[in-house]
Amino acid sequence: MGGDHGSRAIIHGAARAAQEHPALTLELFGPRQHVMAELSRLPQPLAAAASRLVPRDAAHAVPPGATAAWALRHGRSSSMALMLDALSSAQCHVDAAVSAGNTAALVALSRRVPGMLPGIDRPAISTAIPARKQRTCYLLDLGASVDSPAQRLADFALMGAAMAQCVDGIEYPRVALLNVGAEAAKGSVSVRQADVILRRYATQGAFDYHGYAEGGDLFGGCVDVMVCDGFVGNAVLKSSEGLASMLVERVQAAFESRLSGRLASFLARPVLRRLKQELDPVRYNGASLLGLSRIVVKSHGGAHAEGFYYAILRAMQEVEHNLPERLAERWQQTAP
Amino acid sequence: MGGDHGSRAIIHGAARAAQEHPALTLELFGPRQHVMAELSRLPQPLAAAASRLVPRDAAHAVPPGATAAWALRHGRSSSMALMLDALSSAQCHVDAAVSAGNTAALVALSRRVPGMLPGIDRPAISTAIPARKQRTCYLLDLGASVDSPAQRLADFALMGAAMAQCVDGIEYPRVALLNVGAEAAKGSVSVRQADVILRRYATQGAFDYHGYAEGGDLFGGCVDVMVCDGFVGNAVLKSSEGLASMLVERVQAAFESRLSGRLASFLARPVLRRLKQELDPVRYNGASLLGLSRIVVKSHGGAHAEGFYYAILRAMQEVEHNLPERLAERWQQTAP
Repeated sequence: MGGDHGSRAIIHGAARAAQEHPALTLELFGPRQHVMAELSRLPQPLAAAASRLVPRDAAHAVPPGATAAWALRHGRSSSMALMLDALSSAQCHVDAAVSAGNTAALVALSRRVPGMLPGIDRPAISTAIPARKQRTCYLLDLGASVDSPAQRLADFALMGAAMAQCVDGIEYPRVALLNVGAEAAKGSVSVRQADVILRRYATQGAFDYHGYAEGGDLFGGCVDVMVCDGFVGNAVLKSSEGLASMLVERVQAAFESRLSGRLASFLARPVLRRLKQELDPVRYNGASLLGLSRIVVKSHGGAHAEGFYYAILRAMQEVEHNLPERLAERWQQTAP
Repeated sequence: MGGDHGSRAIIHGAARAAQEHPALTLELFGPRQHVMAELSRLPQPLAAAASRLVPRDAAHAVPPGATAAWALRHGRSSSMALMLDALSSAQCHVDAAVSAGNTAALVALSRRVPGMLPGIDRPAISTAIPARKQRTCYLLDLGASVDSPAQRLADFALMGAAMAQCVDGIEYPRVALLNVGAEAAKGSVSVRQADVILRRYATQGAFDYHGYAEGGDLFGGCVDVMVCDGFVGNAVLKSSEGLASMLVERVQAAFESRLSGRLASFLARPVLRRLKQELDPVRYNGASLLGLSRIVVKSHGGAHAEGFYYAILRAMQEVEHNLPERLAERWQQTAP
């Protein structure tokens, strides 16, 4: 039921994933009548997959503006909570949960059920940012925590490195700590303390530690994981999304003012459309909630059907690599 | 002597400003022999302005990696400190200082000489970010402070609003506080406390307070001033610079793969060149150190001659509007 474009975008994205992956079944949590009506209106070829889109009745949804505290107190029977209950129930055989709903509620509810992996305090939100050299960089945290102390930043590094290893097969991921400069004396106290912990983890073989990096290094293609507090990561991610979208508009306007309409649409639009997709990471990749005992992926609230489809693919990738279990193994090897 | 491209870029940028503004005289702080040699090599028409480029001998420069503490202890006779001494000396008749050197050193040294305006604790670094609707947004702080408490964030708001009023003539600037979401319960403690102070300032008529904004709103064109801690602002600014530069490369590569070399250079390159300039705010605008008793502008370390030229123009604009004096007036009207 989440997302800015309503349940139709969610159901269309789900139908596309089901249609392309014959072994996939998706349970759709929302008011049954409403979900059934949307399913019956699916166009071909999406409608062919409708038998593997199973409505699960949930009368109400977490409101977009609800706080974590509200969700914990009043959200027990919301579509989001019922989805997470199904994820953690042994009878339901659900492998992963995907939501485009309220992020704060998703973090709070999933921390309770399915709950955290042993030894991990809070989930981190992470997404793969497109970078130079055809590479991506996992940025985390994107807003699950604000004011992160040093140990939590170090936890983010372990989780990000585990994701790069398990999902992307990077044996020895290069991890950097976001700071205001590369010099040792710079930055906040928690960042400087985290640097000490990360150096120790690196000597234990957890990852290849790059040291401090600046915001621009996110796109440089030299780092696989960039760690920061959730306030900073959220600001960086959202400003990057805003800038990318403004830039694509400006390039388009600039070409249209120089070229005739026809030539512009032939030359510029296909290029810009592809670029837009490449550069809108959360909208097109989904964001993973790491550190939970099961797989939960957050789709962008502003995602259309295509974005939700990609979030489902992300969840499937994490299922394939058994991410939580492998993350737990790595945790026991390294964490204090 | 600062900047990644050496003194030649600085001197060429200075010469261009002097050539275009016949009333402008620039004093150049660096080793006299070296500066003289560069001046003698200026090409026409820049060489015509050489008589208004006055070398001021300074044997050494603050190293790029020096800390603020190092600069305060050992930097007294550096080109940067001598420039700031000239700025604060009544005999020198210097109106503004522009540097492409070490930011931490510039903040620390300028805080000592020329010093802060009465009642202001620390300078803030701010630059105008290009936004939609042909507008710009002042983002501050960009790294002068990390871990800013609520009152310092509120000070940033007053300084940014004063800049928008004085320099851009926006009578009632729209000020926003950067947060992880628009909801009241979100964000760090200092941001939520700053929100309370900003609401009070707004009722006193200091500015039009928009409330919380997210990273993407920086480019939306609906806000004139965006306030955040220096760690966050620095990360947002540098990641935006990195993204803009990656994006321009990608657009260029995409067009070049679709068009013949000649057509690409005719159609795409001029558009992209302009875009690059528009989107590289610090490189092309300079960043102001606000809250000092005199005008100090930081040019991007990576700026070529053109970037340094724009930083000088920025300083001239602030001189024209008598920014520190007007900022001090506004301070007395509003601040606690």
